[in-house]
Amino acid sequence: MATTTTQDKVIISCAVTGSVHTPTMSEHLALTPDQIAEQAIEAAEAGAAILHLHARDPKDGRPSADPKIFDAFVPRIRDATDAVINITTGGSTRMTLEERLAYPLQAKPEMCSLNMGSMNFSIHPAARRIAEWKHEWEKPYVEGMEDLIFRNTFRDIKHILKVLGDDCGTRFEFECYDVGHLYNLAHFVDEGLIKGPLFIQSIYGILGGLGPDPENLVVMRTTADRLFGRDGYRFSILGAGRHQMPLLTMGAVMGGNVRVGLEDSLYLAKGQLAKSCAEQVRKIRRILEELSLEIATPDEARAMLGLKGRDAVAF
Amino acid sequence: MATTTTQDKVIISCAVTGSVHTPTMSEHLALTPDQIAEQAIEAAEAGAAILHLHARDPKDGRPSADPKIFDAFVPRIRDATDAVINITTGGSTRMTLEERLAYPLQAKPEMCSLNMGSMNFSIHPAARRIAEWKHEWEKPYVEGMEDLIFRNTFRDIKHILKVLGDDCGTRFEFECYDVGHLYNLAHFVDEGLIKGPLFIQSIYGILGGLGPDPENLVVMRTTADRLFGRDGYRFSILGAGRHQMPLLTMGAVMGGNVRVGLEDSLYLAKGQLAKSCAEQVRKIRRILEELSLEIATPDEARAMLGLKGRDAVAF
Amino acid sequence: MATTTTQDKVIISCAVTGSVHTPTMSEHLALTPDQIAEQAIEAAEAGAAILHLHARDPKDGRPSADPKIFDAFVPRIRDATDAVINITTGGSTRMTLEERLAYPLQAKPEMCSLNMGSMNFSIHPAARRIAEWKHEWEKPYVEGMEDLIFRNTFRDIKHILKVLGDDCGTRFEFECYDVGHLYNLAHFVDEGLIKGPLFIQSIYGILGGLGPDPENLVVMRTTADRLFGRDGYRFSILGAGRHQMPLLTMGAVMGGNVRVGLEDSLYLAKGQLAKSCAEQVRKIRRILEELSLEIATPDEARAMLGLKGRDAVAF
Amino acid sequence: MATTTTQDKVIISCAVTGSVHTPTMSEHLALTPDQIAEQAIEAAEAGAAILHLHARDPKDGRPSADPKIFDAFVPRIRDATDAVINITTGGSTRMTLEERLAYPLQAKPEMCSLNMGSMNFSIHPAARRIAEWKHEWEKPYVEGMEDLIFRNTFRDIKHILKVLGDDCGTRFEFECYDVGHLYNLAHFVDEGLIKGPLFIQSIYGILGGLGPDPENLVVMRTTADRLFGRDGYRFSILGAGRHQMPLLTMGAVMGGNVRVGLEDSLYLAKGQLAKSCAEQVRKIRRILEELSLEIATPDEARAMLGLKGRDAVAF
Ligand SMILES: [Zn+2]
Ligand SMILES: [Zn+2]
Ligand SMILES: [Zn+2]
Ligand SMILES: [Zn+2]
Repeated sequence: MATTTTQDKVIISCAVTGSVHTPTMSEHLALTPDQIAEQAIEAAEAGAAILHLHARDPKDGRPSADPKIFDAFVPRIRDATDAVINITTGGSTRMTLEERLAYPLQAKPEMCSLNMGSMNFSIHPAARRIAEWKHEWEKPYVEGMEDLIFRNTFRDIKHILKVLGDDCGTRFEFECYDVGHLYNLAHFVDEGLIKGPLFIQSIYGILGGLGPDPENLVVMRTTADRLFGRDGYRFSILGAGRHQMPLLTMGAVMGGNVRVGLEDSLYLAKGQLAKSCAEQVRKIRRILEELSLEIATPDEARAMLGLKGRDAVAF
Repeated sequence: MATTTTQDKVIISCAVTGSVHTPTMSEHLALTPDQIAEQAIEAAEAGAAILHLHARDPKDGRPSADPKIFDAFVPRIRDATDAVINITTGGSTRMTLEERLAYPLQAKPEMCSLNMGSMNFSIHPAARRIAEWKHEWEKPYVEGMEDLIFRNTFRDIKHILKVLGDDCGTRFEFECYDVGHLYNLAHFVDEGLIKGPLFIQSIYGILGGLGPDPENLVVMRTTADRLFGRDGYRFSILGAGRHQMPLLTMGAVMGGNVRVGLEDSLYLAKGQLAKSCAEQVRKIRRILEELSLEIATPDEARAMLGLKGRDAVAF
Repeated sequence: MATTTTQDKVIISCAVTGSVHTPTMSEHLALTPDQIAEQAIEAAEAGAAILHLHARDPKDGRPSADPKIFDAFVPRIRDATDAVINITTGGSTRMTLEERLAYPLQAKPEMCSLNMGSMNFSIHPAARRIAEWKHEWEKPYVEGMEDLIFRNTFRDIKHILKVLGDDCGTRFEFECYDVGHLYNLAHFVDEGLIKGPLFIQSIYGILGGLGPDPENLVVMRTTADRLFGRDGYRFSILGAGRHQMPLLTMGAVMGGNVRVGLEDSLYLAKGQLAKSCAEQVRKIRRILEELSLEIATPDEARAMLGLKGRDAVAF
Repeated sequence: MATTTTQDKVIISCAVTGSVHTPTMSEHLALTPDQIAEQAIEAAEAGAAILHLHARDPKDGRPSADPKIFDAFVPRIRDATDAVINITTGGSTRMTLEERLAYPLQAKPEMCSLNMGSMNFSIHPAARRIAEWKHEWEKPYVEGMEDLIFRNTFRDIKHILKVLGDDCGTRFEFECYDVGHLYNLAHFVDEGLIKGPLFIQSIYGILGGLGPDPENLVVMRTTADRLFGRDGYRFSILGAGRHQMPLLTMGAVMGGNVRVGLEDSLYLAKGQLAKSCAEQVRKIRRILEELSLEIATPDEARAMLGLKGRDAVAF
């Protein structure tokens, strides 16, 4: 019937630490394997069905792609929760593709992120607001983003689809930072290199990508509807910084899923740093429940996204 | 600066009883002057800055335009709260324009609703779900809407703008049920018959008007931006029935104000009737506060909307 | 494949005379049966596949619903062309529904227009620009539209769907003057009272309905996509007045069909009255051909719209 | 007034040869200085107010940034026309920024293109349709785009704004291939590094950027309206390949300017190669004139865009 829609349960993803924020920006940012594991496990307990994970060097919190570091927290999270473990393939804008793929290819997880295009990706203006940095690497790291490109060429993407998707049975969180990234995704669908169900992580508020105006959620939704059909994909929202909770809430009203976590925003409310990822999970959950929306369990998320299962991994 | 916006405080309007729902549909619907006054006052105490009011015949809950009935609750509400009192000029689809204007012209309130076009306006499919009606008038009233037009011709609107706006200093909640109603509003602005600040109540989910799809909020917002400029109007959201809380929440994320009340929805959550308008006020308020939004007081609402003041009325 | 679309041939509808414009506004407006027949036949020869027809009183050009007048030109057009004959059920805003249906029910045409909602519908501001009127009826007719409603209640529409659609096999040009009219259409589809393929005539620039901003074509297109699916309807564009050619052209780029004719615009170019409907047909055809678009023949239009055939009528 | 807009004259830009297409794809592509000069001059005579120019190595048609090659045609074009000369700073995806800027910094033209972000930019699927290539460089060049990034970091853009904009008085054709590029532009406006009037070249149909769906023109228009205000920028349309004429036409209806030329499309109509850029200019001009739109002269374009004048250049 034309005017009736049913709303599925909402998948909460949680991106624990990422590679964009630096230790100076929040003392609550998980840096060590222990901290990452603790925040991830607490987020899962609070209701996150998917845990999106990056690693950092425990010495100084610098982003790392070292499989040994991942090994220090991923199995521990697997043992403590039944959440879907989703490993980044984006790493940081300073890593090579080979570095970015090292751990995913070893771990063969149920899900990995996959960034759908090359782009400028920067938080360099944030450096102006910070006078004292905890670590030496931080200031040049943040300022240097002004001149860096987040590399994801068509060939890179094709490669990841082959070695992780086809060869490992990993499915993807397709990170789309701009409308053109949806067209890139459609290109690979047209080429027969991607099969559904698609999980589209639409991203708002990163300098270099689509801005955080609420109207953009409708732009992404409408474009995805046109390219894939409303039933051909799952929509999810990632709002950067202070736009996190408002945009996630709006996205859920629009039938989407949500992603929280300190990778995406260090805040819990206006002017108030989040003490943990779980705080953000609990907050979005309260809002979703006020809106009569239900939260998907990890297994419900697996079914919705067609994942291979928690036992079919190599960690 | 191009990409920075500040969010104003959010005005909560509360439409206490309206003329669409009938007593059978909810035992919590305010019908008598006492009930209307009590629910209105409680809503104001909960945070509603504007109270949108209709009257009903206390005998059987039938919509009424009788000034004597309004007289039995409006002054009482005025004495108990400092909320802005907003009297309908829409009345019900079965009243003549003269009837609809009788009390507003007597009361000269700070604010009246003004419907920006003629349209079909019906909840006749709801009658199918009701087997036993409390009052005889209800079933033909609801079923008969299938053949009724909510009349608001250009001449009617011009008349109201003159006799209430120009002559009484009343300002308007411009109720826009469809995109064309925004163009009608622009027509009167172009003709010099309306001056800002405009308060646009955008309405979703009434059969005959714009549907409740979330995308429509962006359509209305974008159209109003184009016609009036973002700073030329205040945006507000009215979502009918089960769409109330989701659409209001989305509207607030988009920088809009919100309208709750049992006129618009009898529900508090999925499958759960609201016991009072105040319950809905408290709910939207919790959501707004989760989103770091602040609630406007009645006097802040007066300043935002350019109202003449609570003492400049005739009741 | 996600990103490939094929463009169908374009159906040109031509609305010969309508009921909105009056004789004073253009000496080229067809008023008598002879004039209507001649302009219709010439338009068909120029490439119009569908002829949308109203009648006027030959004495003074006043809109008429008299079947005898229709009888004076409809069979003549049928004999001279193989175009689809489409009879208005809208008539004029001053006719009763019974009057509006008199000739369609007699003629049982392949196609009738069907207006999907009640609304204000007015060109009263045009009266200010005219100092001398040819006929006495014209000025009050045009000025009076300010206070008139174009009546099409849910019950009216249901009635037409039954007596013309179900009983005569007539299919409809669903005239949608606002976004809510698409929802009304979806309501009847949901109720099982309308079956596809739908032919949606989307209308821009009538005071009382959706304005002529080009953005609105995308609003209507996107809403129809969401409600009916891109393959569930045929999209067509009617642009009022000076917006006719630009909006039709834009609509064709968007995959839509087009409607021309002096009912919709008296002009051919900026400041230049059209001498005939055929001039407008030839103009849009030149533009479509510059854009590598092909024109549908009447029989191609019949196949695209699922019509019963030119012999299955009662005239 | 809210609902009235006036349409400016339309600026036709012509991009003569670019760096994307290769000699095998069309024998009409200008490769030598003589051919570039001839096509540019003929395009200006046909109505192009702005000529967007790249250079190619006359030996084999390979894209070149060599100032000596530019010197062989730019002064000749200047002498033969009064069109605005606009030099690319994009060059090709294989050139360094230093190479790309060599000639613009020497020539200090009235206008340069400036690409507003890094992105994948590829026509590699086109290589599959070509069996025999004229030159050895072409196949690896086209296929290799699959792995290349069009580099325009924030620091690159800031540099160009400084050395060409501030230091040479050159103004820019801001090439926006995706919605995020508009936000990048807004970022530089917010930083005070760009002053209006902005000339936004919005681009559709390049693999890696926004797709060619007509809806996207409204997305870009609406986003630009929100970020810069309707009066804060001039909108222009570049449609790649077969989408060129339809999207340009639609853009003009929306109040935009248009860009033609064999850089953007090798075709004149469906299946028919353009024999020259001027053919495309003449075609869009015919369409614009059918739509009652007027063409801007070079001096009118200079006034609309605030250019420094044809004598204030260094060639
Ligand atoms: Zn990540
Ligand atoms: Zn009301
Ligand atoms: Zn008609
Ligand atoms: Zn170029």
